[in-house]
Amino acid sequence: MKKTTKEALRREIREAVRLAREKNPLAPAITNTVTINLVANAQLAVGGSAAMVYLADEGEAMASVGGAMYINMGTMLPVYAETLPRTAKALAEQGKPWVIDPVGIGIGGLRTSLLLGFRSDKPTIIRGNASEIIALAELWELESGKKSDGVRGVDSTDSVEAARTAAISLARHTGGAVAVSGPTDLVTDGKSVALAAGGSKFLPMITGAGCSLGGVAAVYACVATPFVAALTATAIYNFAGAKAESRAEGPASFQTAFLDALYQATPEDVGAQPFTIETVGK
Amino acid sequence: MKKTTKEALRREIREAVRLAREKNPLAPAITNTVTINLVANAQLAVGGSAAMVYLADEGEAMASVGGAMYINMGTMLPVYAETLPRTAKALAEQGKPWVIDPVGIGIGGLRTSLLLGFRSDKPTIIRGNASEIIALAELWELESGKKSDGVRGVDSTDSVEAARTAAISLARHTGGAVAVSGPTDLVTDGKSVALAAGGSKFLPMITGAGCSLGGVAAVYACVATPFVAALTATAIYNFAGAKAESRAEGPASFQTAFLDALYQATPEDVGAQPFTIETVGK
Amino acid sequence: MKKTTKEALRREIREAVRLAREKNPLAPAITNTVTINLVANAQLAVGGSAAMVYLADEGEAMASVGGAMYINMGTMLPVYAETLPRTAKALAEQGKPWVIDPVGIGIGGLRTSLLLGFRSDKPTIIRGNASEIIALAELWELESGKKSDGVRGVDSTDSVEAARTAAISLARHTGGAVAVSGPTDLVTDGKSVALAAGGSKFLPMITGAGCSLGGVAAVYACVATPFVAALTATAIYNFAGAKAESRAEGPASFQTAFLDALYQATPEDVGAQPFTIETVGK
Repeated sequence: MKKTTKEALRREIREAVRLAREKNPLAPAITNTVTINLVANAQLAVGGSAAMVYLADEGEAMASVGGAMYINMGTMLPVYAETLPRTAKALAEQGKPWVIDPVGIGIGGLRTSLLLGFRSDKPTIIRGNASEIIALAELWELESGKKSDGVRGVDSTDSVEAARTAAISLARHTGGAVAVSGPTDLVTDGKSVALAAGGSKFLPMITGAGCSLGGVAAVYACVATPFVAALTATAIYNFAGAKAESRAEGPASFQTAFLDALYQATPEDVGAQPFTIETVGK
Repeated sequence: MKKTTKEALRREIREAVRLAREKNPLAPAITNTVTINLVANAQLAVGGSAAMVYLADEGEAMASVGGAMYINMGTMLPVYAETLPRTAKALAEQGKPWVIDPVGIGIGGLRTSLLLGFRSDKPTIIRGNASEIIALAELWELESGKKSDGVRGVDSTDSVEAARTAAISLARHTGGAVAVSGPTDLVTDGKSVALAAGGSKFLPMITGAGCSLGGVAAVYACVATPFVAALTATAIYNFAGAKAESRAEGPASFQTAFLDALYQATPEDVGAQPFTIETVGK
Repeated sequence: MKKTTKEALRREIREAVRLAREKNPLAPAITNTVTINLVANAQLAVGGSAAMVYLADEGEAMASVGGAMYINMGTMLPVYAETLPRTAKALAEQGKPWVIDPVGIGIGGLRTSLLLGFRSDKPTIIRGNASEIIALAELWELESGKKSDGVRGVDSTDSVEAARTAAISLARHTGGAVAVSGPTDLVTDGKSVALAAGGSKFLPMITGAGCSLGGVAAVYACVATPFVAALTATAIYNFAGAKAESRAEGPASFQTAFLDALYQATPEDVGAQPFTIETVGK
């Protein structure tokens, strides 16, 4: 890929960071109770606005007022059987971008049935760890390259590189973007694949690092294309992770420094994060 | 208003801060899942005790054992259709003070119907941002002075001063107090209006600043009149906000320093917070 | 009790700390929404893996994939009427250890009925404050030594020593261990009683200190006997509490330092924590 393309991407990343701070976009969420506070605070730290709901008519209302939305499957509640399909329908009808995090894919009947439904009511950005991305491609019967080694609870047992084919298939199916989190993060729109190293050893040691990245991606999806939004969220997490690690004595002081760093990060900081990009064959 | 009145108020504020630390009053809550942890920790930091419930018979039990209660409408759950009316009835029967935060007013059918019910089963203290206060006065068909510019998700689009008439009408309707949060906070019992500047630019950047203020007001409502409780909660937030901002590098280190400052605040610190007070015409 | 026994226990404690960091055991939880984030982060900080669920089939799935499980009764939800009995049955069928925290015992009909059910579908470790432990022994009609002075919301009104007989009765009934938290903690398997002082004045000032100890005990129950798991969780809390207090300015900076200290604690740090142990008469 030509150097100009990478420079253009960097410019779009800087612009996404800047616009989120300027416009304070509302990116409502339906998300798990474990990390819901961190999701909201991360969204605020990058300049966005947060609002979390559980009920079906509220999900529809949020689809209407939000610039983009975030749905995280972490802790399923009975009411989600009604809320998630109706919210996804409302998002589709209004052409609003939305991010899904298929946390816990494979656990329980409700989560599986809801995720199956999103094969047709498609999310715009899919964010997960490698095992989740592979499992979702399998669930949707897309070409996934390999069988997952399995999801253990909420943790990945596969490498990011092993999820490459699945991520590309998912992005091509949705027409949006896929972000795979890991030591090196992979972001693809089905045509290009960006790889970004960085972050921190502490990120997997705080619950909700991935969940909140999904919420931040939804904020950026209010002001950027799915691919740029996913890449910007990944880049600001890598920047803030590295900065916070240098000040942290453990995972809790890391989390504090990390949120502060999300707040402090300038468009230039985020736009300067290293990544490689390559074009994907047909 | 005479200087003696202001001095008397300062004395009552100091006394509220002192009594909360001495008596460790229990102020149970039914509150949203986003900021529930911060609400509890803020209540503990000022000397109170916290207990959160969701079920109807537990709401009634809490109305019975608590000195005052806090109901926050942030994240509606199906069970609230039964829990909130029964809890409000129990609070009324037992003459217990309670605080409501009408977060998200206007979003969804359940929230609207429950808030309508509280027109007759009245809360003692109403806490909200300007848009929420105006919207509640409109919902209850009280004289509200102006139409709200609207609530956007959970954020205010109106100024505190614009909510003055609505706040006074609400306080007169309930016979309690109303606290409007903003750059300058307004607290009224329908007869007097107190204005208190202060706080921190970081308070709106942490999710739950307002929610936790409501929980803290409920702690003070166990040991003070509604007006003094609302004013004390506002004053300790302004004190702790300013103190924390001077030590913060971003919203997360601010939140840590803020809770620490709530814990450290003495009766004298809080009683010395600046405010103006004026008598309201009929 | 002979010195060699105490030395053997210290060795087992060190081994539990080491194995949790080495094996990253999954200890899923069904736990209250107030402190769910702290529970997860504390489990991660000691080397474990966390996964929280609400639905019945997910509870069963977690019983299957987890090494041990944690059930905390703090915030009852309607779905628990189905989820908790089915999860307890699944844990029993698979012989998996599990920890219960009977928070709020005595409040509401559902909590009481579920706790009654656990008299036969027995937990492996019971963790609570003195009032909760006494109340549970009374609920299960075991010899409890004394009547509880009552549970007030979620706080204890009894001393740890007052709960000694109840704790021993509960441990003999379940065949597992009981941990009573307080200024001096008591841990018993019905045959021996260990007493461990330490911790911090700040621990009762952060919501979820006790809840998260239960989650950490579940992590250790994946790699140690119930008695050693409960003792190790107690010891690492006492170590981290003391270390964190020396760095804290208030409860929030304490919580950050506490989680960091859980992460930093070595097997030697935890194994060296002081405790006394005595054999219990028949």
